[in-house]
Amino acid sequence: MKNKLALKPYKKDFEYSYTYGAYATYELIKTKPEIVKAVYIHSSYSDKEEIERVCKDNRIPFLYDDKSFIRISQKENIYIIGVFEKHSYVLEKTKPHIVLVNPSDMGNIGTIMRTMAGFNVCNLAIITPAADIFNPKTVRASMGALFRIKFQFFSSFEEYKAIYLKHSFYPFMLNGEICLNLDNCSKENLFSLVFGNEATGLDESFSNIGTSVKIPSSNLVDSLNLSIAAGIGIFTFASKNGLI
Amino acid sequence: MKNKLALKPYKKDFEYSYTYGAYATYELIKTKPEIVKAVYIHSSYSDKEEIERVCKDNRIPFLYDDKSFIRISQKENIYIIGVFEKHSYVLEKTKPHIVLVNPSDMGNIGTIMRTMAGFNVCNLAIITPAADIFNPKTVRASMGALFRIKFQFFSSFEEYKAIYLKHSFYPFMLNGEICLNLDNCSKENLFSLVFGNEATGLDESFSNIGTSVKIPSSNLVDSLNLSIAAGIGIFTFASKNGLI
Repeated sequence: MKNKLALKPYKKDFEYSYTYGAYATYELIKTKPEIVKAVYIHSSYSDKEEIERVCKDNRIPFLYDDKSFIRISQKENIYIIGVFEKHSYVLEKTKPHIVLVNPSDMGNIGTIMRTMAGFNVCNLAIITPAADIFNPKTVRASMGALFRIKFQFFSSFEEYKAIYLKHSFYPFMLNGEICLNLDNCSKENLFSLVFGNEATGLDESFSNIGTSVKIPSSNLVDSLNLSIAAGIGIFTFASKNGLI
Repeated sequence: MKNKLALKPYKKDFEYSYTYGAYATYELIKTKPEIVKAVYIHSSYSDKEEIERVCKDNRIPFLYDDKSFIRISQKENIYIIGVFEKHSYVLEKTKPHIVLVNPSDMGNIGTIMRTMAGFNVCNLAIITPAADIFNPKTVRASMGALFRIKFQFFSSFEEYKAIYLKHSFYPFMLNGEICLNLDNCSKENLFSLVFGNEATGLDESFSNIGTSVKIPSSNLVDSLNLSIAAGIGIFTFASKNGLI
């Protein structure tokens, strides 16, 4: 007999995804209760009472099915799984944006979301093709920040740019025209910081969309890690513009 | 009959480790030829001539053993593996340092090494216990920067501090006494930036070792990712002190 409660291992074409662990699941319930379909609790989870109460308070179904935990995450000790509907937004026209052009690493996307939420820059444009932002690995790297920010998908940078005309675009490029440093970071409330793919960066055409920015660095490395470059850019602009 | 050429899957107690892929292996040969024991080339690698020549120029033995590639990395397409001896250094007393207290994630350690090399802060103290810095995963995350920096292990922060007395210590803490920002970052050539473990940070006792630093952030997240916090700290101090 087939177990109707059973969770299937995540696939990109699902209309739902998972949070692994109590931390991310509580973040999900706290910030986006309306998208939570169910919460799975492992029978050996230590604080069943609290998670059951939180689910009841939010009218979220919860269930016990230890086999689902084995199926979903064979290697890891996870005791709570949240099931949530995939969702997207329309970005806010009056807020600063981050644009990721064809990001390919789920860990980087999640880490950048966490950094964005940390610095109050909460609108993210993703130019496809891109790694799956709903994959549980991305959700985990974001530490639940996926549920704190707005994100929208665009099939090209031109499509994004045509809608958000009033933003000042700052493409981050290895040969950028200005150096990002402590003194010359622009004070510009409606900024849009644009970062390219991990392996290829942004192509030359991006130098025409706005003021290209270079993070000064030594010649000991070819480039910085994408999430580090984004972290430094977001921190510097957020700091200069009084967002933190 | 046993294949004497066969590489074994990496273990922490080995006296050697591996670089995966041509990029990291060329970095290794270029920067630390004296520690390279051998280079394995897959028979379907496209540019055998170049890697053979570089090995010969550096008197490094190279060999073909496709089965080793299967054994070492079943999932990935790797065509070059470098075998290198583990090594360590004595840190430079006249250069700025980064101190990682009990880092537990190999990806973070590698990414921090890459960032350090990028910003010319090339001395790293690691307080043990810590994740394995020689694991091929760390080497990969460092993009070869492991071979560009000096690192030394200490069993406690006190042991490190007793040797590097003249450094000014800046422990990064969520409740740090000064906010890291664009204007008040210290100009202090002999700085030592101290970062705690991913899950626990630095305990309260670290607030007495020097000037504790907080990276200002929103309350939407509990903390930043360790490699992001380190990246922002290193960039800001390196920038203020003219290292980049």
